[in-house]
Amino acid sequence: MRHFVEELEQLKSKLLEESALVESAIYRSITAVVQKDEALARDVLANEVRINQIEIEIDDAAVSLLALQQPMAVDLRFIISTIKINNDLERMGDLAVNIAERALSLLGEPVVKPMVDIPHIAALVQSMVRKCLDSFVNRDADLARSVLSSDNAVDELRNASFHELISFMERSPGNIRQAVDLLSVVRNLERIADHATNIAEDVLFLTKGIDVRHHAEPRV
Amino acid sequence: MRHFVEELEQLKSKLLEESALVESAIYRSITAVVQKDEALARDVLANEVRINQIEIEIDDAAVSLLALQQPMAVDLRFIISTIKINNDLERMGDLAVNIAERALSLLGEPVVKPMVDIPHIAALVQSMVRKCLDSFVNRDADLARSVLSSDNAVDELRNASFHELISFMERSPGNIRQAVDLLSVVRNLERIADHATNIAEDVLFLTKGIDVRHHAEPRV
Repeated sequence: MRHFVEELEQLKSKLLEESALVESAIYRSITAVVQKDEALARDVLANEVRINQIEIEIDDAAVSLLALQQPMAVDLRFIISTIKINNDLERMGDLAVNIAERALSLLGEPVVKPMVDIPHIAALVQSMVRKCLDSFVNRDADLARSVLSSDNAVDELRNASFHELISFMERSPGNIRQAVDLLSVVRNLERIADHATNIAEDVLFLTKGIDVRHHAEPRV
Repeated sequence: MRHFVEELEQLKSKLLEESALVESAIYRSITAVVQKDEALARDVLANEVRINQIEIEIDDAAVSLLALQQPMAVDLRFIISTIKINNDLERMGDLAVNIAERALSLLGEPVVKPMVDIPHIAALVQSMVRKCLDSFVNRDADLARSVLSSDNAVDELRNASFHELISFMERSPGNIRQAVDLLSVVRNLERIADHATNIAEDVLFLTKGIDVRHHAEPRV
């Protein structure tokens, strides 16, 4: 059996591979919506299999490490964080697939005003995803905390988009199908932000051993 | 320190307490929508704190058990399953809160036809939740498998509701706000079903040590 430190490094590198796949899926799915790019949307659907596969590999490796190595303290926290982050990443991949499906459904529709807010929310959510993953790699508690403080901004943008999309539907029933798809895109982006927040909380648990869930630590 | 078996029993009983709270939150939130019952919706919002608190208690207890007892084989699988199921239960509680918020928003609106499908979906989802929790308590792999086979039925009902709600909006723009709330209720129910499916998969992992995620095992 390889040395424990090597096994941990292997686990970390698999998680980074997964996170790169997930970031790319999110980026492509959003671009597919905004630029009406069918090929990008289909890429996201095709790559889901790889994300699902790597999720299982990571989970198996983490459980084996717990079973065979009986790690203590900081290594134990690292492995448990990996199990949780792995779960969040896989769900973010599913949400990117949902967005890609909406992109395909929106292909035939004209580009409309309510789209304007989606790139804005998407940019904020992508920055949260990048920061939470960087905070994990560098064990950077300050960066993780900055992700928590973005979550409220996403909620506000979500609410504004919802109102805008409802007015858009009320103005013309012909807009309804498109608006329902766009509502779904916004909701999926919001859920990706929720998972980024979960990961940031896990990073704080990992770096400081404190539990910041449910606002146990004041958000900036 | 208490005996390991006692600690495991304590962990299991906390998870059962959490699952009872979550089942009750789901039941109340749906009843609040269907019967326009404001008091029930407010109950759900008030009880979220307790679910969040017990989630942290379970996570802490599970991590301590892993750290201090270094359990092997079936106990290790039980503790890891508990960490995952705990996470799913807490999110199901959040989804019940979302539904309760939609119930409050819908209070002033007249009862309309598209409501007819929501009790139907809700009944199916509640039965999945009950079965996945029972399958965990009794380590009943067959019951867990029956939850997996219900997931497609929920997706079909969801699609039918979406089409019905979109037609409802197209018939009259005055219906749009209400229909958007009802779309949200349906989507939250679907997500609760997804978490019930996750729990059923964890029960299969626990009972047989096989991984059925991502359809590795054929669904009935």
